Parts: sequence; structure tokens; C-alpha cells
Amino acid sequence: MRNLGFAIGTMETGPENAITDVPGILVGHSTLIRDEPEVVRTGITMVVPREDVWTDYVYAGSHVLNGDGEMTGLIWVAESGMLGSPIGITSTSQVGMVRDFLVAETYRLGVRGGFYLPVVGETWDGWLSTPSSFPLTPEHAAEALGSAASGPVAEGSVGGGTGMICHDFKAGIGTSSRIATSAGAPFTVGVLVQANYGSRPDLRVDGVPVGREIGYDVVPSAWREPPVGGSIIIVIATDAPLLPVQCRRLAQRATVGLARVGGYGHESSGDIFIAFSTGNHLGGAHDAPYPVTTLPLDSMDDLFHAAADATEEAIVNALCGATTMTGRAGHVAHALPLDTLVEVMGRHRTEDERS
Amino acid sequence: MRNLGFAIGTMETGPENAITDVPGILVGHSTLIRDEPEVVRTGITMVVPREDVWTDYVYAGSHVLNGDGEMTGLIWVAESGMLGSPIGITSTSQVGMVRDFLVAETYRLGVRGGFYLPVVGETWDGWLSTPSSFPLTPEHAAEALGSAASGPVAEGSVGGGTGMICHDFKAGIGTSSRIATSAGAPFTVGVLVQANYGSRPDLRVDGVPVGREIGYDVVPSAWREPPVGGSIIIVIATDAPLLPVQCRRLAQRATVGLARVGGYGHESSGDIFIAFSTGNHLGGAHDAPYPVTTLPLDSMDDLFHAAADATEEAIVNALCGATTMTGRAGHVAHALPLDTLVEVMGRHRTEDERS
Amino acid sequence: MRNLGFAIGTMETGPENAITDVPGILVGHSTLIRDEPEVVRTGITMVVPREDVWTDYVYAGSHVLNGDGEMTGLIWVAESGMLGSPIGITSTSQVGMVRDFLVAETYRLGVRGGFYLPVVGETWDGWLSTPSSFPLTPEHAAEALGSAASGPVAEGSVGGGTGMICHDFKAGIGTSSRIATSAGAPFTVGVLVQANYGSRPDLRVDGVPVGREIGYDVVPSAWREPPVGGSIIIVIATDAPLLPVQCRRLAQRATVGLARVGGYGHESSGDIFIAFSTGNHLGGAHDAPYPVTTLPLDSMDDLFHAAADATEEAIVNALCGATTMTGRAGHVAHALPLDTLVEVMGRHRTEDERS
Amino acid sequence: MRNLGFAIGTMETGPENAITDVPGILVGHSTLIRDEPEVVRTGITMVVPREDVWTDYVYAGSHVLNGDGEMTGLIWVAESGMLGSPIGITSTSQVGMVRDFLVAETYRLGVRGGFYLPVVGETWDGWLSTPSSFPLTPEHAAEALGSAASGPVAEGSVGGGTGMICHDFKAGIGTSSRIATSAGAPFTVGVLVQANYGSRPDLRVDGVPVGREIGYDVVPSAWREPPVGGSIIIVIATDAPLLPVQCRRLAQRATVGLARVGGYGHESSGDIFIAFSTGNHLGGAHDAPYPVTTLPLDSMDDLFHAAADATEEAIVNALCGATTMTGRAGHVAHALPLDTLVEVMGRHRTEDERS
Repeated sequence: MRNLGFAIGTMETGPENAITDVPGILVGHSTLIRDEPEVVRTGITMVVPREDVWTDYVYAGSHVLNGDGEMTGLIWVAESGMLGSPIGITSTSQVGMVRDFLVAETYRLGVRGGFYLPVVGETWDGWLSTPSSFPLTPEHAAEALGSAASGPVAEGSVGGGTGMICHDFKAGIGTSSRIATSAGAPFTVGVLVQANYGSRPDLRVDGVPVGREIGYDVVPSAWREPPVGGSIIIVIATDAPLLPVQCRRLAQRATVGLARVGGYGHESSGDIFIAFSTGNHLGGAHDAPYPVTTLPLDSMDDLFHAAADATEEAIVNALCGATTMTGRAGHVAHALPLDTLVEVMGRHRTEDERS
Repeated sequence: MRNLGFAIGTMETGPENAITDVPGILVGHSTLIRDEPEVVRTGITMVVPREDVWTDYVYAGSHVLNGDGEMTGLIWVAESGMLGSPIGITSTSQVGMVRDFLVAETYRLGVRGGFYLPVVGETWDGWLSTPSSFPLTPEHAAEALGSAASGPVAEGSVGGGTGMICHDFKAGIGTSSRIATSAGAPFTVGVLVQANYGSRPDLRVDGVPVGREIGYDVVPSAWREPPVGGSIIIVIATDAPLLPVQCRRLAQRATVGLARVGGYGHESSGDIFIAFSTGNHLGGAHDAPYPVTTLPLDSMDDLFHAAADATEEAIVNALCGATTMTGRAGHVAHALPLDTLVEVMGRHRTEDERS
Repeated sequence: MRNLGFAIGTMETGPENAITDVPGILVGHSTLIRDEPEVVRTGITMVVPREDVWTDYVYAGSHVLNGDGEMTGLIWVAESGMLGSPIGITSTSQVGMVRDFLVAETYRLGVRGGFYLPVVGETWDGWLSTPSSFPLTPEHAAEALGSAASGPVAEGSVGGGTGMICHDFKAGIGTSSRIATSAGAPFTVGVLVQANYGSRPDLRVDGVPVGREIGYDVVPSAWREPPVGGSIIIVIATDAPLLPVQCRRLAQRATVGLARVGGYGHESSGDIFIAFSTGNHLGGAHDAPYPVTTLPLDSMDDLFHAAADATEEAIVNALCGATTMTGRAGHVAHALPLDTLVEVMGRHRTEDERS
Repeated sequence: MRNLGFAIGTMETGPENAITDVPGILVGHSTLIRDEPEVVRTGITMVVPREDVWTDYVYAGSHVLNGDGEMTGLIWVAESGMLGSPIGITSTSQVGMVRDFLVAETYRLGVRGGFYLPVVGETWDGWLSTPSSFPLTPEHAAEALGSAASGPVAEGSVGGGTGMICHDFKAGIGTSSRIATSAGAPFTVGVLVQANYGSRPDLRVDGVPVGREIGYDVVPSAWREPPVGGSIIIVIATDAPLLPVQCRRLAQRATVGLARVGGYGHESSGDIFIAFSTGNHLGGAHDAPYPVTTLPLDSMDDLFHAAADATEEAIVNALCGATTMTGRAGHVAHALPLDTLVEVMGRHRTEDERS
């Protein structure tokens, strides 16, 4: 959205305005778009906390706004406070395949002790992609993982976000980052979302009621009937040295950004958030008590702002990064028209006020 | 705020736009403002779910956005799904006194079996009221409870909200309600807040960045140093027949409204929410399985909108209902200037857009 | 264990002393034992809450003693309080396959709206079964589901329990039931466990320190090195009409029975419990508030005893029902010698004291 | 119980077999026994994590087996992972007074920033002590806190335990400790309980069904009618350097010890556990990220055993340490007869088997 002249909040972004601004984070996509034998618009996205996460765990915590969704592995994240796998995000029906792939990967790599509880989340792409089809394979998962890289992150209809719709506009993957100052030092907070929730009238961009202003006469609705599902997966990464209890708090702040865009945690939405910190190294080989680093208790506020603002912007980026897509049964999910967005924003904000 | 020409969202309010629009709900205040022997600006508010709540429990659930606060009784609410006492809201230091008062009240009333786990929340009024003073007594608690009534609810600097400050403007108690349609029938959702959180620049009214536009040159800050504390208590009531698991979900939606006004769940904030439903009667005398009523699983969305919108409006009402107050040590908390608010809102919203 | 002359507690069992004593519950197993191309000792067990659970959900709740394990679907169980799928239990590595199978099943069956969040748990059978093998297929899952039946339940090394070891003796699936009297009426509580946790010296049967008395000179240890994992999945079913909040409480009582046998919730154990109630019918077609039935708040104790006692006995049954198994790499898991067990019990209990 | 020749488990105790074996822990009691104007048998116990806990917080976590009870301050413990106050334990009706006293104490001491969320738990002594009386005062709380000391801890009918009854025998305060070896180093785990739960037939000592063997013909029941309440508060302390997420896990293991003695988490019981670690220093003055120490993830098992075993023994010590007490309305709570206990244990255990 920044190329349109808008921003969320006043904090600086990292160089790519992406979750990969947190050093060491890799993101990869596998996108599957085909019309035969069935129309599929689906894929897998992998967020790798660090290349050797299998042996050098990161602290993590999660939060659920509305639980009509799945994210495997969260029981162990809650118990241990740690994450020892890449995070997969994909289509609802194939969470299990991606999850088992990540377990198999630990055998392929010869990870000592294995890792059996990978984190894989999902949102439902069945409006555009044939829901009874299970087209993704371990090869797609391997492609997403193998292609994971630092640097710019593709947004919109890619990877797990391929078939997703948000606030009744085509959406998918979005990302953003912020530089927070905490306890006197700068830290990066990066967010990546797979956005697939919400209704048109609720959409706001920086507080402006964009969804009310871009009516169905301007852009037709994607729906002919109420969709089953919805959902948003939000991944928050930071290099700030957080303990598990602090990661959980950060994860919860995704709610703040989501609420400001227009998320209510609808009944049929799986709004599941995970936050992790690369600021400590927790390799499994410890045979004695070992030191880790924590931020002081009262140093979290700037990180909270960063997580909320980057979440808000990442969702808008998922919308701005997507283009109109036609899926199964002639279903069309229209892109948010960027020129109209600019026009609406301009009517509500003076140049100065654009944060 | 409605008398200023603004509203939050498009849903209708109840007749009083207050939590008391939910039939049977009573609200009472005890306000203590005195300058001798110490400057105190404090009080107690009681929300009574129904007159005979001591014996006819209501289903309830709670949610915490940030837990730097106290609400007693929530362990039992979580375990039983029930609430069997009025809800007290007061100053941080005297939560215990109000809690013990409510236990004593069950003896005074001869409640069979007693009720030992009342719900009492707090926010910190120590910037205006001498924090080392413990001026409230059981008599004040009795006054708040005894004066509890249906009908209009006093807002701003009253009861537990007497000494409270929100987004760096004088605030306190605020309330609002909405009529939701769920499973084909109308239900009322009422919200009451004791608002004492947040910083000026974060304040938004219906998405408009009011806090950024009303600078410290226009209205001085209340603070000469960062305050200890903050916090907001949010009580949500409904006559929709919700089970405990559904009450918990409703409580969580307070986050959505709070986030839109500018709450981040700051580190030092106790952002604690409780929701209860009067739609079932759970009198303790059952000696056999008994019927209760539940909303269908997929009928929650309108209630979620109602809870979020009424929360947002209740916070703004807490601001609009308060007037400038001078407290201890010459501290002054200035009211939100309503004329400036109207002017700022007008610049960002056309008449049509005022929701 | 009852054929040995012992019992846990004084409550009566149902006719089969099995989870299937709860009317409508079906249990099916698929057992996979083969030596080529790799040695596998694994399988899948399905617990079906009722035949039409896909459309007539049951209320449910869960509890985790130690979370080094996976049970998919619990986020939605917590949010909705409902379960809308059979419960699968299998080997750690293939939880995802079984989970996706259950999603696919809703398409095969044409379940309206589908069901996307099935509950599948696991324990780790990698000591006896080649852990890098992923031998189970959707056909095995279909076999377990298709063979699900009421009546007696096979115990020991069957289904998901095939390769499991508990307190260093061969174990697997175990089940037990109790008739509880609650609010004046009889209800059945049934428990099924997949037991794969614990060390030898901690094993107790009805309080008797059996594990200390049956030393490694009597029965060799299965381990040559500490195993990775452990874990126990416990499923509790009842026809008592419980709300979700009450199901969660029942699930937690599995801890009590488990602790008495010798479970500590070890670090590497996934001790995950789910309880559901068939006492209400929650078919999805409701378009208005509808009645459900609840037990009175103070009527839970007999159910709690039933859940704890049946859990304790189900674990012992998983031990008593298994026979010695040789697995990969010559690993041998020895059965608990029943004659020695009888002898040890006899030394600590007089005939009268056998509960 | 050790003077009777019995022990729980095989781990060594600390020098006092008390929570005070954890270096720095102080315990104080205030006991109030009088017959005029009303019969009261009540009191307050304080567990001080370290003398300067007000400014040098400890990491902490909590767990609830059954939530029919109160422990203030747990919302903040969950959010921050820290505890910044002594822990009070008292009678149900006066939790609030003790809680407010601890807040006031921070003003008296001039604690920078204050501490507003102290942890105070309760159990119900209304069978022996007039429940409509509120006889405790801040002076009693000050006495308990002021007398807190290291070294031996008085057990039985003292402090908060004065009027308590457990498994239908007179009980109260009990304590025990264990030396655990974790990650190659020795650490102390200490437990203190205020035991007031359970029925006679469920009582077991080291697995021996003592409660079934000491019938009402041997020792009359304390009850003429079912009591309101019950409950047990369990405090676990350790000098092992645990993070908050690890403290929570330790707290949960209190369930294991409690279950083995005969606790089921009855409906009317408030079974609330808190664990804290003195192994890190968290003084509030940090203005930069700072190092703390953690045990490796896989080093918790010995601590778990220690917590469970010490809990089991502390409950038995609460029973063994109490003597018969006559309270209000002629109610008599009889002590567990130690000679009978020895006789029963002897019948079930050979000398060798006494663990």
C-alpha cells in the first residue's frame, strides 16, 4: 500500500517492509493454479524462523481470536514455549499432509531426536478451488520449503494465499515490518498474514471506511451465497529477545491490527496467531542450565505497537497485492481497485494526515 | 456521543443506549470526592446481572487482553461457567474490601450456601486520588449496591470511574447498547466500561485519528510523568440465551471495540472483560438434569458486532461524559473538548458517512 | 484386570466394562504388523461418538497434562464446545494423514457444509515400528472407521495401540467404564486409552507399587536407551447431559486416574485428554434458539470419580491385554506377567481389601 | 509422617523437609483461636519467596485442578510470568482484606511503583469457625508477614490452616521438600499446602487405602451434613532456574501428588496451585535486555517427581501434624490417629517396601 501513498502508523519499516526484515527469516511459496482435472487455486507458504530451526529452536507463543480453524503443533508450543519447525500455511483440507511432510523432513535431514510436532495453519480456499480435490502433494511442500529465501516476499495470490478472499476482495499473502525501540535498542517486528476473512462493509484502511464506500455496484461481490469459513493466519517474528510468555503477548496483539481493518473474529473464522523470537538460541544439546536473554517487563509497548501496526498493514498489503481471479464454477473474486482506494482515502485524509 | 451527531456502526441501540437496556440489569454508583484529610477521587460501581443473582445465577465467561490488573472470582467463572454475584468495579487498592463486602452481603441476606467468589475488578486512579489512602468502606460498597437501578446510567466521573483518565483525557464510566438479531429474534447487548487506559495519539473515534489532531497545545496532558497503570474493565451483558462457552466468546469481542478506539493492551494495562447472559435461569435448587436454551452455533456474528460496536461507543461515551477534574498534587485531567471533537469529526466525515 | 480378581474403586462397570457401554459409541481398529519392507508395528483406532456425529455434534472439552503431543481439532473444540467428527488415534508421524482422511470423508459422505477440523491424537511407536516409515494409508483409516462397532473392544496391541509401551511393559489400547449416579439418575462414563508413557518403577495398580516389585531381573526392560516420546491419549465419553464447560472438567479428571497408576506428565509425554457427552443433540439445522439439557452444577462428583477410576482401570487393562512383542532392531517389549501381578497384589491386599 | 517410619517416594528431602529448604523462603503464621464473641478457628499464613520480593520478582506460574476457590493476582502472574509479593493463604471470607493489606504494605515500605496485584488464596474454615464472622484484621496479616522466617515450619492447625479439615480428619498446613537433580546439578523443591478437601474413604497414604480402613466406628466423622466447600492451596517453590513457562508446568504436577492422596478435584473444591522459582533475579531497574538462566527443556522430570512427591507428603504432614479440634456449634474435627495409621501401613507394607 505504501506505493499508493499510505501507511499505517508512524513507526519505520524495515528495508523490505516484510517479515524477512527480521534477520534469518526465510519465506517460500508453492502455488498451484490449474483447471484440469479440477479447477484448483491453492498452494503452500512456509515461514522458516531460521535455517537450522530444527536444532536451534526459537521461543514462541500463540493466541486465538476465533478458533474455527486449525494450527497443528500449538499444544507443544504452549507447553515448551518453543518452536522447532518451519511454519506451514496452506488450504484447510491438506493441513495434515503438510504437517506429516515436515515430520518426514526431520528423518530426511537426520535431525537428532526428530521433531514431531510441526506448526501448520490453514484457511479455506474452497470458493475458488474445488474443495473436494486434494491436489497438493509433499512435492509442493518441498518446493515451498526449498524455495524459502530472505529478501522481498511475493504478496497476494501466491502460496497458501492463492485462493483466498478477504473483505470480499481477492487477497492472500501480505507482509509488513516495523522497527521498534525497546529497552534502548532497535528490534525488528515482521508480520506475514494469509488473509481470508471478513465482509465488505467492515473493511477499513487506516480507519477510513473503505468497504462502505466501495459498494457492490462498483465492485461485485465474490459470493453468491455465504461462504463456509473465512479465517486469517498471522505469523509475527521478531529478533527482540523474548521469553515464551512475552511471545504469547506479542501474538495476541495481532488482534489489535486485525480489529482495526475490520475483523470481528466471526463465528466461522479461524483467526489464529503465532509469534516467535529469534533473539535466543535454544539448541537441544544443553546439559546444564544456560543463559537466555529477556527484555525487561516494561519494555514491550513499542513491540506491541509494531505488531499491531504491521498486522494492519500486512492485511492491506494482501489486498493491494492481489489481482482478480476466476476460480471453479465461474466464481470471480475481484481485486480491490487501487485507484478507487486512493480516491476514497484522499477524501478522508489530507496529505498531512497520511500517517 | 450521539448528541454530538456521531455513532459507531449501523446497529440500533436500546432505549437508553446503556447496559441497563438488557432487561433486569441494574447499575449503581458510589462516588467519593473530598480534599480532606487527603485528596481522594474514587468510588465504586456495581453492575447487578439480576436482582436475585445470588440464587439465580447467570452464565458467564471472561477474557483478558492484557493482565496487569485484577478481577477476582474469574477462576470460578471459568470452572463453573456461572456468575452468582453483582460485579463490582473500583480502585486498584480496594478490590479486596469490595470483594469481602460482597461475601458478607450473602450472610446478611441469608443466601443459602453463601456465595464466596464474587467478581470485582479495578483500574488505578492514583494520579488524581491519593494512592496511599484507602478511603472506601463497606458503606460505600453498600451505597453502590443499594442504589443500583435500571434506566439511564450516569457516565464519566462517577462511581468506580471517578478518578479515571483515558487516552489522556478525563474519563470514567461509559455505557452503550445494541439490538442484535440472532437466529431470527432480537436480543440486546449492553456494555459498561470503566476506562482508564491509553495515550493521546492513539485515540480514534469511528476511525478518525482524533488524538493526533487534538494536540497538547490544544489540551494539555494530564501527565507530568508516565503513570503507573492504566487499564479498562469491560462488562458485557445480554439477554440472548448463551452458554458459558458462548459468553467467553462474547467477552473476547470487547478487544475488537477497544482496539478500534486505540487500545493496544499496553504492558501496564489491566484489560479484563466479562460477559454474562441473563437468557437462562440457573437457580441452585435443581435436583435433576434441567433444560437451558442456547443460540445455534452459527448465530453469534450479530452479537459479536453488537459487543464490539457497543464497546467502542461506551469508551467514547466515558470520554464525552466526563468533565475536567483537578486531583491530588494539582494534577489536572482535562476533558475531551466536545466542540473540537465535532470539528475534527466533521473534517473527516461527510454527513452521509456518519454511521 | 477384572478376570484376575482386581478392580479399581467401588463403582459398578457397564456390561462390557468398555467405552462402548455408553450407548451409541463405536470403536474400530486397523492394525498393521509386517516385517517387510520395513518392520512396522502400528495402526489406527477410531472412536465414533455416534454414527451421525458429522451432522449431530456432541458437546466436548479437552485437557492437557503435558503437551509433548498432538491432537488436532482442539482449537475448535475449545471455541465451539462441540465435536463433529470421529476421534482418530494413531502413530505420531501420521496424524496428518488420518486428519486429512476425515476431512475427505465429509466430502465422500456429502456432509452439508463439510467438517474441516477433525480430532486426531497420537503416541509414538518408533521403538518397535520403524519411525522413518510412513506405512499407514487412507485405506487403513477407512478400515478403522468402517469396522467401528459397539460391544466388546479389543485391547492391548491393536489399532493405534499396536506398537505402544507403558511403564516399560507392552501396552496399547485399554478401556473401562463406570455407572455414575448424578442428580438422581444413572449415567455411564466410558474411557478408552492409548497408553505409551511412564517408567517401570512408577507403576502402581490400585496403589500397590507393582513396578518396584517386578524388577528388571524378573522382566527385562524394553529400552536400551531412553525412548523419544511416551504419551497417553485418553478419551472419555458419557451419556450424562453435559455442557462444554462440564465436559472440560470431566476431561481433566483423567489426570487423577493417570497419576494414581504412575503418570507424572513427563517432559517428553503428550498426555492429552478429550471428553464428550452424547446427552444432547446439536444437529446443525437450528434456525432458532433451542433447548439443551445440563446436569446441575453440584452433580458432577460421581462423574468425576467414574472418570478417574475408569481411566486408572483402562490403563491397567491396556497392560493386561497386551502380549510380548518383538519389533524393529530386535527390540522386545515384554508383557506385564499376569501371574506375578496377581502374586504381588495378593501380598499387599487381603481378599477383602480388593476394591 | 517421617517420624512414623514412612516416606513418599525415594528422593531425599532437604534438611527441614519443608518449603523453607529452598534458600531464602520464609514462612509465617498468624493463628486466631477464640470463643468470644464468636467461636473462631482461623488465621493467615504467609509464604515469602524472598525477603526483597517486592523489588526482586520471581518467575511464577499457576494451575487450577478445580476452580471453586479464589487466588487473587493470578491474572498478572499469567501475563507477566512474575510474582512480586508474598503469598497469603487464609479463610475464604477474608481473602480481600489480606490482599488489600499487601497492597498497603507496598506504600508503607515505599516500594517504587508499588505492587498492586498480590497473590492471596483461601480455603473455607466455616465448619469450625463462625462463617459470618470476619475476625481477621490487617494486624493479623502483619503478624503473619512479620513473623515469617526460614527454618522449621509449624504444621497442622496453624495460620491459614487453623480451621481446616482434610479427608474428614483435622488438617491444616503441611510442608515437605525434595532434592532434585536436574541438568547435573542439585536443586531443592519445597511444597506448602493448606489442606481442606476430600472425603474419608478416598484417603490413601503411599497408595495404602488408609481412609477405607479407618472407619467411622474408629474415628467419627467431622460432618453432620455435607460441608460447603473444601479446597486445597498448594505452593511450590524451587531454586532451580525456571522460566515462567516451566513454573506453570511445575505447578500442574501438584495434581499428581494430590490425586495419589485421594483428591479428585471435587465440584466444590478450590484446588489452586502456584509455583515459583528463585533461580533468577528480576529486579525492576533493568533498562536493557538482561540475561536469565533456564533449565534445558529435557531436564524437568526430576523436578516433576519432586513436586508430586513433596505434595503428597505435605498433605500427609498436614494430617499428621494436626490435633483434634472442637469448633463452633460443637463441631469436632478428629485428628488422624497416628497409631492406627502406623498399624494400617504396616499391614500393607513390609519394612523393605516403605519407600
